[in-house]
Amino acid sequence: MKNLLPDKIDTLFINCHLATMANTSLCAIKKGALAVTGKTISWVGKEKELPKNFKGRCQKIIDCKNGWILPGFVDCHTHLVWAGSRSNEFEMRLAGATYEEISKKGGGIFSTVKATRNASTEHLFGLAAKRVNALLKNGITTIEIKSGYGLNLETELKILKVIQRLDNHFPLHIEATFLGAHALPQEFVNNPDGYIDLVTRTMLPKVKSQAIATTVDVFCEHIAFSLDQTQKVFETAKDLGLNIKLHAEQLSDSNGAALAAQFNALSCDHLEYLSLSGAQKMALQNVTAVLLPGAFYFLKQTQKPPVNIFRDLKIPMALATDLNPGSSPVHSMTLILNMGCMLFGLTCEEALLGATINGAKALGLDCSKGSLETGKDADLVVWDIDTPADLCYLAGLSPSNIVMIKGLIHHD
Amino acid sequence: MKNLLPDKIDTLFINCHLATMANTSLCAIKKGALAVTGKTISWVGKEKELPKNFKGRCQKIIDCKNGWILPGFVDCHTHLVWAGSRSNEFEMRLAGATYEEISKKGGGIFSTVKATRNASTEHLFGLAAKRVNALLKNGITTIEIKSGYGLNLETELKILKVIQRLDNHFPLHIEATFLGAHALPQEFVNNPDGYIDLVTRTMLPKVKSQAIATTVDVFCEHIAFSLDQTQKVFETAKDLGLNIKLHAEQLSDSNGAALAAQFNALSCDHLEYLSLSGAQKMALQNVTAVLLPGAFYFLKQTQKPPVNIFRDLKIPMALATDLNPGSSPVHSMTLILNMGCMLFGLTCEEALLGATINGAKALGLDCSKGSLETGKDADLVVWDIDTPADLCYLAGLSPSNIVMIKGLIHHD
Ligand SMILES: [Zn+2]
Ligand SMILES: [Zn+2]
Repeated sequence: MKNLLPDKIDTLFINCHLATMANTSLCAIKKGALAVTGKTISWVGKEKELPKNFKGRCQKIIDCKNGWILPGFVDCHTHLVWAGSRSNEFEMRLAGATYEEISKKGGGIFSTVKATRNASTEHLFGLAAKRVNALLKNGITTIEIKSGYGLNLETELKILKVIQRLDNHFPLHIEATFLGAHALPQEFVNNPDGYIDLVTRTMLPKVKSQAIATTVDVFCEHIAFSLDQTQKVFETAKDLGLNIKLHAEQLSDSNGAALAAQFNALSCDHLEYLSLSGAQKMALQNVTAVLLPGAFYFLKQTQKPPVNIFRDLKIPMALATDLNPGSSPVHSMTLILNMGCMLFGLTCEEALLGATINGAKALGLDCSKGSLETGKDADLVVWDIDTPADLCYLAGLSPSNIVMIKGLIHHD
Repeated sequence: MKNLLPDKIDTLFINCHLATMANTSLCAIKKGALAVTGKTISWVGKEKELPKNFKGRCQKIIDCKNGWILPGFVDCHTHLVWAGSRSNEFEMRLAGATYEEISKKGGGIFSTVKATRNASTEHLFGLAAKRVNALLKNGITTIEIKSGYGLNLETELKILKVIQRLDNHFPLHIEATFLGAHALPQEFVNNPDGYIDLVTRTMLPKVKSQAIATTVDVFCEHIAFSLDQTQKVFETAKDLGLNIKLHAEQLSDSNGAALAAQFNALSCDHLEYLSLSGAQKMALQNVTAVLLPGAFYFLKQTQKPPVNIFRDLKIPMALATDLNPGSSPVHSMTLILNMGCMLFGLTCEEALLGATINGAKALGLDCSKGSLETGKDADLVVWDIDTPADLCYLAGLSPSNIVMIKGLIHHD
């Protein structure tokens, strides 16, 4: 958008540098300034290019003391509504048990499903709110949250209602994704297609009629749902006008990404075992690759996602926490930035794009989120750092000074 | 110590569980209570064993809402006083350059030395204070800080004075270690023994006479100082009555640990390449092994420290952040707990002992720090967790509610 001078400015940030993330690069503006009018960014540029009478029009001027402003992080893949604890399984995995072994023992996800089914809405909300708060303190201003620990109509709807309530309660923007096809519930162990029928004929129409999720996701994997079952869910989702995402090729190549691309998915996520042909189909359909180094680290995986192929095919790479109790209990985007660099070999710029504009793309929100551009939502963080790479490098530090969401400054 | 009932209680913690870390185990007390009198823990036990009239004697009662109390973390190995940024080298390492390659190029530590030499005391203090604050928020109540980015008399003393000022400024306890023999300064590149003479004849006597460090450390490695040079520093340290530590066998086996054991060192640190005979000598002299998984992770090392040997020989294992700008920019003990488990295969109990009582042992402070026992300093953290293992498992989350140091509650 054009950098028109707004008549009215509510907040002007000065004495700062900007990593705008426009045009798929850091697109840094040293000695910049940024103006906010209402909920929206109304001016971005060099401070010295501010018109002379500009500051007089501002309600509030914030001196950033030479810090860096970045777009608020977009965490485009989380499962943060759950009850129960899995730290006992963490100890099991330390002793050598694999994800699949724990899963086959009826442990793993099913202990979380049981606790989540038994939890009250109130209790679930309280647990999830702590996690959202941790993410917010870490500079995350948009979060996607998936259901998928209910695996029956009642509990899936309960989780989605908790997500809706989180969105109402917190200033940040929350996108809800229905992931009824996350795992085969034990009641359907001999009738997986029966569960897919429940998802497509009962759950999805309810989700649509209650308008409590915008997107549908499936876990396509030999320990979860087949390609055919995934296709059935996608067909229903498409008929209902819902967006599509996929947990694809995390533990093996199931050709899920190609199917998701065919359904014009927003993103395919994980992708450690993605084939070249799968990537080519993603590229053709502009599907974003969501990389989840937290799960890679916790599962001690060795096969990395094909980052060079994503680069060659210009597939946008997003990074997310995958916050969940089993394979990625990671409550920090700065830690994920670091792991994206250290474990997947992303450059700092790629990692930062992954946590901002490409995260927004993975949610179909890149028109309003993920970069500092005139007309976009004023979701931003002022960081006390020397250079944007510090956010990838200073592991465990979260030196955010100011978090603004839709033009309002959020205080703890 | 005996659990005598104190006459006066300043603070009583109730409705909590305790991981006391007494007797080299978690030594958990479910439904416990803990009393503090002055700066000291005055009673530890089951809440139901509190005498009936006990609560009436308490100035202040804190309801921990079913949380866990652990001893404050002891971070027994940091280099947190430095100036300048090394995030550019982080990008270089991502592109494949090794620690040694960067070091030989005159980059690495020497860029930090240059910036630290040029920094004012005030500036250095401000930078270090931010790092101490980050550690404190993460539940660390005792920190060891090494000099070693000065490499000349003036700057080494400047750093030690900044450490002293940090100790005066913050409620937590700070131990200062003199690490003049951290790297060979470029002025002495053709005269390494001349630099060791400067360390032993000039720097160490000054450090002793000014009483601004309790301990002496050396980096014994083929890219730093030889075994002979290390021995010369240790001999002077011993003559001056200073404690001894060693950066040993991080990148190769230099037989440093055996030498340090011979000098009755408090700890040997890193130890990835430690031999069995080196470990046996450590065991004989009760030397603590300080493991630094942050550096292992950042340097992408593959050789792990011999954890099974430490277990067999009952050598205490401590964990520390190694917070430094080159090889471990890790500002979080909970992240180090996680890495200790994930990367080195520690159990959660071992990791937690490493961050508490064994960290205190590595500093010779285990009489007063590192466990919840009557008579010890009331340095403790109330955590909002279900089980102590959560601190190892919930990466990036730091759910501390209350941090108490020497009987006083610290607020941000
Ligand atoms: Zn997921
Ligand atoms: Zn060190």
